[in-house]
Amino acid sequence: MTIRPATAADADAIGRIFTKVIAGGDTFSFTPGTPPGVGIAYFLGDDIMSWVIEDEGQVIGMYKLIPNRIGLGAHVANASFMVDPDAQGQGAGRALGEHCLDEARRAGYEAMQFNFVVSTNTAGVELWKKLGFEIVGTLPGAFRHATLGKVDAYVMFRSLVP
Amino acid sequence: MTIRPATAADADAIGRIFTKVIAGGDTFSFTPGTPPGVGIAYFLGDDIMSWVIEDEGQVIGMYKLIPNRIGLGAHVANASFMVDPDAQGQGAGRALGEHCLDEARRAGYEAMQFNFVVSTNTAGVELWKKLGFEIVGTLPGAFRHATLGKVDAYVMFRSLVP
Repeated sequence: MTIRPATAADADAIGRIFTKVIAGGDTFSFTPGTPPGVGIAYFLGDDIMSWVIEDEGQVIGMYKLIPNRIGLGAHVANASFMVDPDAQGQGAGRALGEHCLDEARRAGYEAMQFNFVVSTNTAGVELWKKLGFEIVGTLPGAFRHATLGKVDAYVMFRSLVP
Repeated sequence: MTIRPATAADADAIGRIFTKVIAGGDTFSFTPGTPPGVGIAYFLGDDIMSWVIEDEGQVIGMYKLIPNRIGLGAHVANASFMVDPDAQGQGAGRALGEHCLDEARRAGYEAMQFNFVVSTNTAGVELWKKLGFEIVGTLPGAFRHATLGKVDAYVMFRSLVP
């Protein structure tokens, strides 16, 4: 698997993966059926640093790295990850996560924050914990899960400096 | 004091209050000196419900009410408040907060979340606690305070349904 910066030529693949990932209504706020163009703009918009991961020349996932807030909060990064459901369980998410932490440090960020990790997405929560994130907040019933109804979402955070 | 929906005619007043509020670098992420147009767009942009509070015909503060997230998280509201520093301590913030909770219920929101309440803004934190909010998360050093350096920010949350 190879990780490289995303380009406009990746738009179709990003749109396809976005559509598949949000179809379950179980991990992202995007309503299932949200047009792929929304996902493309989400990952490839102006001022967004983003990368894709390829397996045998096929894009199977992507992430973006942005400031979590403007101005006086811009030393904390935010990132968002999607892996093609057909390619999950092979380490792509972990590889993207580690790559992202390195890139965030290189870009000078001092911490990284995830604002909305769905609590029932245990694979995601466990991955971020393995990568050093802690749950620093719990948002009661903040996510309307497609099959489970309202479930909590977590705010997760890790420092990037010693 | 009267609270009414904001209109384009309030832009100048909103810009002036924005400039004064962010000048201290102690409560909002906006870097001091951010152009007033940014504040006007923040409070009067498309799809933003916003209100102003007047005292003797003068606008002395404003707030906006938006979904905190799109789609599957859009049942939780977010709001943002500013009161002219020269008019603080007279109950305008509390009046706006109570008005906002009513408007959020009327709009069908089930909860309200503040993503970034600066921990050293004790007047703000105490006001939100009085209005039923709880600190549900702490973001370590997430705000670069103009005089205190890095300080924590809180995520605050309250339900709007029984």
